[in-house]
Formats: sequence, structure tokens, C-alpha cells
Amino acid sequence: MKNLKGRAVFAQSGGPTAVINSSIAGGLIEALKQDAITDVLCSLHGIKGVLTENFVDIGKENMSELYALKHTPASAFGSVRYKLKDRSVDDTDYRRILEVFKKYDVKYFFYNGGNDSMDTCDKISRFMEKEGYPINVIGIPKTIDNDLVGTDHCPGYGSAAKYIATTVSEVRLDAIIYESPLVIVLEIMGRNAGWLTASAKLSEITGYGADLIYLPEIPFSIDKFKADVKRVVDERRVCIVAVSEGIKTANGKYVGEDASQTDVFGHSALGGVCSVLKSAVKSMGIKCKAIELNILQRCATHCASKADIEESFESGRQAVIHAVNGETDKMIAFKRVDGNDYKIECVGLDLSTIANEEKKIPLAWICDDGTNLTDDFVSYALPLIQGEPDIRRENGLTSYAKLKMIPFRL
Amino acid sequence: MKNLKGRAVFAQSGGPTAVINSSIAGGLIEALKQDAITDVLCSLHGIKGVLTENFVDIGKENMSELYALKHTPASAFGSVRYKLKDRSVDDTDYRRILEVFKKYDVKYFFYNGGNDSMDTCDKISRFMEKEGYPINVIGIPKTIDNDLVGTDHCPGYGSAAKYIATTVSEVRLDAIIYESPLVIVLEIMGRNAGWLTASAKLSEITGYGADLIYLPEIPFSIDKFKADVKRVVDERRVCIVAVSEGIKTANGKYVGEDASQTDVFGHSALGGVCSVLKSAVKSMGIKCKAIELNILQRCATHCASKADIEESFESGRQAVIHAVNGETDKMIAFKRVDGNDYKIECVGLDLSTIANEEKKIPLAWICDDGTNLTDDFVSYALPLIQGEPDIRRENGLTSYAKLKMIPFRL
Repeated sequence: MKNLKGRAVFAQSGGPTAVINSSIAGGLIEALKQDAITDVLCSLHGIKGVLTENFVDIGKENMSELYALKHTPASAFGSVRYKLKDRSVDDTDYRRILEVFKKYDVKYFFYNGGNDSMDTCDKISRFMEKEGYPINVIGIPKTIDNDLVGTDHCPGYGSAAKYIATTVSEVRLDAIIYESPLVIVLEIMGRNAGWLTASAKLSEITGYGADLIYLPEIPFSIDKFKADVKRVVDERRVCIVAVSEGIKTANGKYVGEDASQTDVFGHSALGGVCSVLKSAVKSMGIKCKAIELNILQRCATHCASKADIEESFESGRQAVIHAVNGETDKMIAFKRVDGNDYKIECVGLDLSTIANEEKKIPLAWICDDGTNLTDDFVSYALPLIQGEPDIRRENGLTSYAKLKMIPFRL
Repeated sequence: MKNLKGRAVFAQSGGPTAVINSSIAGGLIEALKQDAITDVLCSLHGIKGVLTENFVDIGKENMSELYALKHTPASAFGSVRYKLKDRSVDDTDYRRILEVFKKYDVKYFFYNGGNDSMDTCDKISRFMEKEGYPINVIGIPKTIDNDLVGTDHCPGYGSAAKYIATTVSEVRLDAIIYESPLVIVLEIMGRNAGWLTASAKLSEITGYGADLIYLPEIPFSIDKFKADVKRVVDERRVCIVAVSEGIKTANGKYVGEDASQTDVFGHSALGGVCSVLKSAVKSMGIKCKAIELNILQRCATHCASKADIEESFESGRQAVIHAVNGETDKMIAFKRVDGNDYKIECVGLDLSTIANEEKKIPLAWICDDGTNLTDDFVSYALPLIQGEPDIRRENGLTSYAKLKMIPFRL
């Protein structure tokens, strides 16, 4: 909707990444410059901060600290895993959000998150439209999983991929020092899409790569795994395995499933794949170490990709520009520009086409009987891990953003 | 012994570190410059390469690649866990080493490793002296554990400490985003000395530190641990626990002991402490994540301390200078120079005073009922994590040393 003037509310949701704060920083800094935006607010803990009127006033922050968000991992304004009910079932939350938006004269709403957050964003946008409340709603994507459809890649993926590729090489260098056989299993995040695990392929560029890569896109067989490991150990003595937490057997059962834990979105909490595979390797009489990269892979800002940081910042900035120019119910997506050099541009995509879809790795990019990736994957992913960030440091450690977090009061 | 002229053999042993290659690079590059050293050889896989005459010719390497060892983790020339028998029991290996040293006219021997390696180094040195074979033997220390006596600190510790402090802060930032209680247990290496785990204290400088630090120096009680965690969760919602793999109960039993695995030196292979503590936290009804830093903490050259890299390089260089000047049966140690600014000098220490001793954290540096470190520890450790390395990169990843590894033939 054109020519809206009023307050802007930003919020972050879902699991954090190394660069989700860079995205919101790009949005906040741009919003502070825009005449159409009278005040810039952040809702704390995602949509929950809207429901509870828990806002901080970004106008009172120091600009240098907003820029320091580019190198501060996780969600500076908190996160939430809160699923809005379908409004046909219960529209209480929607009515409350509308009430708060009216009370605070909110004309711009930016939601920074992954798949589930884009769904939330879409639902809010549609409700406001139905109620005739004028507001421009834009989603700012993030997810290390890289599984949002419609965008070339997702902010957060490049940094996680760089951390994983770096770690695989370091682990391989560590593993090869002895003369005895050794298998190291690295468990990497990714429930249904193997993008993160696939990034282990990039480590080959250093000369110290992974030997076997198991993705959720390909049905997993423990017998085949054991045969694969045996072949590699016989040939190369050391075998580095990169495995997705989300690998499934042919009948669809997660190899690492812990049925006792599911989150509020109904996703199983995975983990333990590397233990299962370690046991399998030990049963073959081969020494094995299992390393679960756990949350380290999503918060390692010290090893972030500069390309990712800058693109994330730009996606936040473009969200504001698109909104002020009258767009709504969109997510900012990256489009790769044709040409020899890597270049992306930001475009607005309809939220409804994105929410609750998952982009998997094209099967044509998976080779070697499901344990490796093609050069097409490398060409796709390599530009995303380029460049080292200029991190503000103090005493040998990162100097993170120091925000005042002053509550916004009407 | 003064005025020796002949070949030099270097070897690496024990578990690797992020900077053990920087140490050996310093030694190799200095040795290539010395007139007293006719050829510079590296023995592959520690002392085993001497026993099997498995040497590479460092004179044939490119200087730029030797310098690139400063940023290449683990042991470029392989490692070994091989314990020389007491020579009074069986002197076969010693006689073989003497034979090889004579055959190759080896007049300088440099052994780059930790506690057990200094013991090996000492034994060889004494045997050669007894046999009247003229050779200068110098140990070049390394150990992330920081447990060698007689030296202010050990090459390798600073980089591991920087990785751990960085990781604790990143994990805390990740942990605090939700509004619900969460405990994260980080399991850190260190069998008997808590130096590595203590480095979690340094993360406080960023504003995102650990809440509870458990060291092997203090007897561990699971009941006290649960009470500590409850207090922190009640006060701060999130509790970050840094725990050493080597914590022991009051009766001396390792909390994470897996009695089925011991290495050739008779050390138990630990692991699993974080699982034990995670179960304890879950039994209290609090969500808990367990992260074992595993070998990541010892090979993360991408997060190395520049101070550590440069000091390690210097320790290798000084080993050669001390040897050429006639010293033998010594280990290069760091002495902290008195004054306001941090400065160290390299000195030669008798190997016999070092081998098989372990330096623990002074009890006066442990406070808060055994869960925290004093400012004295911070003053000691902080200089060791300073500075960022200038890493040679290619395609967004580290460009590791590319050695030719040409076998040395007489």
C-alpha cells in the first residue's frame, strides 16, 4: 500500500543464525532514515512482543552498536516458537495484534525468520488486509537450512556452510596424523534438506575434504553405509563422514529419531545420528569419533562469510525500501544475476508461495551413489562462503553489539 | 655439546594442536639457516620414523609453504603414540635409534610434543650421553592442556583457550534468545588439569560468559552440581556450564570414565561427562543441551591466537639456537618477564625436571565454591589469546601448507 506513514515494528523468530542480526540491522538502520517511518520499534521475542506490547525504541540506540549487530550472533531481540492458530479456528491472537497495531499506529511490520516465521508473517498480512487495516508486511528471510523456496539461497546459509567446510578440513588434518584407521562422523543440522551437510563438499577445495556425505534427500541404509566406510578406510585409511541429522531409511524413519521430543510445530527433535553411525563403525572393529556440530554451526559469527553478512544486511535494507515503496505480503528473496561473476539482486516474492514449502537439493547435484555432490553444487555454493568479516574486537574476542534496549512507551 | 656439525632431525608426537606446526616451522626455518646443520630432516610419525628411517628432506620444500605451516593445524609430519620402554628393561629401540643417528650423521634432534614426548626426548638424550654419542637433543613443547611444569604456559594453549572463550560467548548468545530456562553443558578437554576449561572464564569479557566452571582440581559432586544449576537458572534463566572431561568425584573416580578404553600410556579415554550432566539436568525438569567440543578445540586454526602462533614459532626457532649453541637435554620454556606489559623470553629447562610432571591450576585461583576463577587467572591467561592471525586464504577457506614431502636418501 502506497504512502503509508507511521511506526515500524521489527521482530525476529525461529532458531538463530550467525547473521540474523545483520539482516535486522540492515532493516533498522534503513528504517531510521525513512521519512515514512515515524518510530522504529523492535518487538521482543518475535510476535509475542506484539501481543504483550513489549517493544524497544531503536531510535535511542547508538548507530555504532546497530552496525555491531553485523557481527553479533543469534537474535538480539529474542526469539519465540509460537504458532498462530488458523484464524478460522481461533482469531484471538489476530484481533489482539490488530488492536496493538492500531494503538501504536504501526504501518510497517517486518518479520525476520525462517519457514514457520514466513507462515506467521503471511497469516498476519492476510488478516490485516481482510480487516482493511493499512499496513505493509514484509518477511526478512533467515535460515541456515537454506530450504526456503523462491530464493537463490537464504541469509545464514553461507556462514554456516563456511563454518562446516572449515571444520571438516581442520578435523581431517587432525585425523590423518596417526597411521591407524580412523573414522570421524560429523553430524550436521538439516531435517529434510541436505544443504548444510552438502557444504562439507566445499572443504575439498583445501585438499582436506569429506569422504562420504549423507543427505536426507537420499534414503539411508546402514548396510550400505558400512560398505562405503569399509571401502574408504581400505583405500585411504581415514574416512571423514558428513551426515545430516535428518537422514531417513527407505521406509521414512529418521535414523536418529527420538520420538519423545517434538516441538510446537510438530517437528521431531533429532540428534543422535552420529552415535548410531559410531556404533556401526565400531561394530566393524574400526576406531570412530562422533562429533555433533550442534548449535556451534549456527552461531559461529567468528567464522562467518562476509558475503553472507553483507547480503543479509542488504536483505533487511531492501525489506524497508520495498515496504516504503508500497509492497506488502512479500518476502525479500535473492535472485542470482546471469553472468560470469557472482551477483545477486533482491526481489519481493509473494509470501503465500513461500510459507511451509521446503527446497531440497536437486537430485541431479547428488552423485557417487548418494555420497557426494557434483561440481554444479560447488559452483552454486562457493560464492556464498567468500570473504572474511571485519570484526570489532576487544581483548582478543569479538566485541558484540551493546544495545540499550530502552522500552518504547506511547 | 659445542661445535657439533651434522644433520638435524625433527619429529612431532602426541595429540595435535592448532599451532604445533608453527613450532616446527620456526625450528625448520631456523635450522635451514644454520651452518652447523648440514641437512634438515623430518622424521615421519614421531620417533617411529627414526626407527624405520622414514625421513623427508626439508631443504627441498618451498619457504612459503614452510611459513604456511603457521596456519595449518595438526601435525604435518604425522604423530605417534609410542612409548619407549625403560632402557633397563629393553634397550632395543634405543640401540636402533643410535644406529640410525650414526648412519645419518644426526647431531641435532628436536622432538615436538607434550608431556609423554618430553619423557621420550629425555630418555633418548640420556641414552646417547651414556653411549658417548655426540648429539644435542632439545624438546619443543606443545600441549593444549597447558600442564607442562617449568614453563609459564605451553604453545597451543592460547589458541585452544581463544577457541573455547569464543565458543562459550557464541553459545550463550544463542541460548538466551528464548524466554524459557535452558542449560547448556560444554564438555572441554583436560584429564587432570583444568586450564582449558578455565579458559571459559575469559568469555566473560564479551559480556556473555559461562555461569559455572567445573575443573578436575576440585572434587565433583552431582548433588552440588544440581544445586548450583538450580540457583543459576532461578536467577538468570539460562545457565552455561563449562566442564572438564576429567572431573572426578571425591573418591577419585572420573565422572565420565569409560573403563573399556585406555591408551598406550595407560590414560583412560574419557568422554561422556556432558551426557552424565545432561541427564542430571533433565532429571530436574530443565531443558538441557550437551555439547562436546571434542577435537574441534585443538584443531581450530581459523580461530587461533596470533600471540600463540608467534610464540610457538619462536619456541621452535629458539630450540635450534639453543642446540647450536651447545645445549642439550633441555626443553624450551617460556618465562614471563616482569613488568606491566606482557612479554616472554625463551629459556632452556632440564628435560628431567619436566617429563611426567603435571602442572595444575593453583587452588588460590579457583573461587566461588569451586565453580569460578579469580582475576589472577584472567591476568595470567588473557595475554595468551591476543591477536588474529593473518591466514593465507583461497576461495574463502584457509590455504594450508602444501609440502612436497620428498623422502631423504643418503
